Amino acid sequence: MSELKTKAKVLKKASRTLSMLSADDKNQSLERIAVALLKQKNWIMEENKKDILQGEKAGMSSSLLDRLLLTEDRLHQIVDGVRQLIHLEDPIGQTVETWERPNGLKMESIRVPLGVIGMVYEARPNVTVDAACLCLKAGNAVLLRGSSSAIHSNKALVTVMKKALMNNSPIPTDSLQLLEDTSRETANEMFKLNEYLDVLIPRGGAGLIQSVIKQATVPVLETGVGNCHLFIDQSAKKQMAIDIAVNAKTQRPSVCNTAESLLLQKDWPYIPSIIEELHNQGVELRGSSELAKQYSFMKTATEEDWRTEYLDKILSVKLVDSVQDAIEHINEYGTAHSEAIVSEDQDHVDLFFKAVDAAVLYHNASTRFTDGEQFGYGAEIGISTQKLHARGPMGLRAITTTKTIVKGTGQIRP
Amino acid sequence: MSELKTKAKVLKKASRTLSMLSADDKNQSLERIAVALLKQKNWIMEENKKDILQGEKAGMSSSLLDRLLLTEDRLHQIVDGVRQLIHLEDPIGQTVETWERPNGLKMESIRVPLGVIGMVYEARPNVTVDAACLCLKAGNAVLLRGSSSAIHSNKALVTVMKKALMNNSPIPTDSLQLLEDTSRETANEMFKLNEYLDVLIPRGGAGLIQSVIKQATVPVLETGVGNCHLFIDQSAKKQMAIDIAVNAKTQRPSVCNTAESLLLQKDWPYIPSIIEELHNQGVELRGSSELAKQYSFMKTATEEDWRTEYLDKILSVKLVDSVQDAIEHINEYGTAHSEAIVSEDQDHVDLFFKAVDAAVLYHNASTRFTDGEQFGYGAEIGISTQKLHARGPMGLRAITTTKTIVKGTGQIRP
Repeated sequence: MSELKTKAKVLKKASRTLSMLSADDKNQSLERIAVALLKQKNWIMEENKKDILQGEKAGMSSSLLDRLLLTEDRLHQIVDGVRQLIHLEDPIGQTVETWERPNGLKMESIRVPLGVIGMVYEARPNVTVDAACLCLKAGNAVLLRGSSSAIHSNKALVTVMKKALMNNSPIPTDSLQLLEDTSRETANEMFKLNEYLDVLIPRGGAGLIQSVIKQATVPVLETGVGNCHLFIDQSAKKQMAIDIAVNAKTQRPSVCNTAESLLLQKDWPYIPSIIEELHNQGVELRGSSELAKQYSFMKTATEEDWRTEYLDKILSVKLVDSVQDAIEHINEYGTAHSEAIVSEDQDHVDLFFKAVDAAVLYHNASTRFTDGEQFGYGAEIGISTQKLHARGPMGLRAITTTKTIVKGTGQIRP
Repeated sequence: MSELKTKAKVLKKASRTLSMLSADDKNQSLERIAVALLKQKNWIMEENKKDILQGEKAGMSSSLLDRLLLTEDRLHQIVDGVRQLIHLEDPIGQTVETWERPNGLKMESIRVPLGVIGMVYEARPNVTVDAACLCLKAGNAVLLRGSSSAIHSNKALVTVMKKALMNNSPIPTDSLQLLEDTSRETANEMFKLNEYLDVLIPRGGAGLIQSVIKQATVPVLETGVGNCHLFIDQSAKKQMAIDIAVNAKTQRPSVCNTAESLLLQKDWPYIPSIIEELHNQGVELRGSSELAKQYSFMKTATEEDWRTEYLDKILSVKLVDSVQDAIEHINEYGTAHSEAIVSEDQDHVDLFFKAVDAAVLYHNASTRFTDGEQFGYGAEIGISTQKLHARGPMGLRAITTTKTIVKGTGQIRP
């Protein structure tokens, strides 16, 4: 049997044991992992060095090499992440809903693990530990499919974690498997392994995610593009609007919850102030024609600009007539990720909340809060931009499902 | 532009209007549909006759022809179904959860429609109305892709429904579209229309469902196979066990929540009684070898039998040593649909509930209750056998999603 199928089968079996463990049992095993990673940090860094050397030889860019690199500091951060997971509440076994039927059947929906999760990701060895431990904490077995360029690091990390799960660890060592065969053919086979995998979670760039969605028959938890808008209403307070715009664009421009488009109600009195402040903060502005005419430093935005997730210190800016106009623009060009309105007019806010279709909508706050940590979930498996199962930041609960238990006294269906 | 894309685009636009309607508005439009269907019943039956004649010519089986047939009675039933929907609570706009963050952000997760749903189904014209109205009630626009052999019936039904949604109907007539091009190529294209469709729901046999899952890039709500088990524990009460076994197998053998396999704890004192009663009820029994030896009317079950969803008055029967044995068998051969234990031993029941992985688990009740109506959902879009989004019977809530609205006072991310 192929490596893939053998490991998948082992995972399916392990997932049954795992699903029945208590929070204490799982936390004890996660602590074993934390301790082992610290103990073996030198060996892990040595193995990581092999990937780095290989990457340098292959001409990998410095930013990719940086993502690949494991330092002592970074390993400590990774271990801190595992220990934070230990402190999170375990969603498994929680009662989601109870109800009773007229025939006396008592129904109870309870939270249970998904089963086996396939993680597909790029050359970021920290994901190997983060994702694996998040899955285990929620009682799921996990198949890790990382990048071939991080294979030495991944093998080392998984070896250390699996060893930590031997010798009477409540979480069985079989619960965690690294797919060492990183060929494209095997990946394709993995994406269609409905018999053993309950869900696939791709983590990485749009290319990776789209490729998984296109090929998979296993259900996918889709994370994706954020073309997020900030709409400044006529009634918006000057400083609040400026602060939010600067924060939403510049606090961390490379992530999906950063604002990419600023919509300004044309009669708002502080348009020049917000534009100049953004310009002073080093943001490249691309404006609709009437704006571009007024500011020498502003390029004219093309149709393409309204659709672009820059992930950079670039912002498209448009004047709109009204909140309705803003809503129409957002529903046309947005990616249903995070959309914000700054306004003191409650009717406008209500309309915005009702008419804009997105995972998260903000009133008088930065779009940068769309994040598992910021939402209070403690850890994040990604931000869902699809509508099924989970929408927005996904924490532990997003990698669970429910089962309904029905308590009867001999009921049969008439 | 193709019929598919044109209609999908129109649906996407209509879904925005639809998502903002009140329950009263939607109900008013559904009542228009009910009235119109009754008014036009003769024309609908005439059009249906064309499909029937065509089916007869093509040599369609009598059971398929029966599914295709629309009689006056059946049209009345269909209209009753629409009116039942009117009385159901509208899930849209409900608050699912509220929480607050230390920085003062107030979060509220509210229920909203999925958007545009693609329904894919077989030659059952009643589904055209049922599915469309269920989607509309939950604020979703719907693209119907039925079978070419029901095309006249479907066109007639959709024409009547769309006309009912003209002239100031709150639900816009654009919210409902029938894909008249029933070619396989166009179906494949539809399954990949992620730009416009939020979810696909196939309704029909395993072949149809698997074909959608294999081809689709749009997320699929999977409904599927039920290889359901009934385990009779050593402590089970005699008459209760027999009644539940007979009900679970014979009350309606052709549906997915019927029992297909009976597991008998070997020391239960009433084994001969349950076997003879099932035999007397006309059930064909296929037993493990030790049982087959004892009963002349019992065939020996093959490995294949344990995996088979008969959907017929056939039942496989096995002796097991213990509840653990039963659990192992179920987790090996079951399809995670509905599994039942009859027992007076609470420890065994608790273990069964904990260790069996299925959408619905029963104690002392028939598996036949896995059904939207029986669960109290009022209407059913299908029974989900996947773990994402919805598991078990799916009512209106299963065709909704959430959005989180965040109320701030100028918060920015530090």
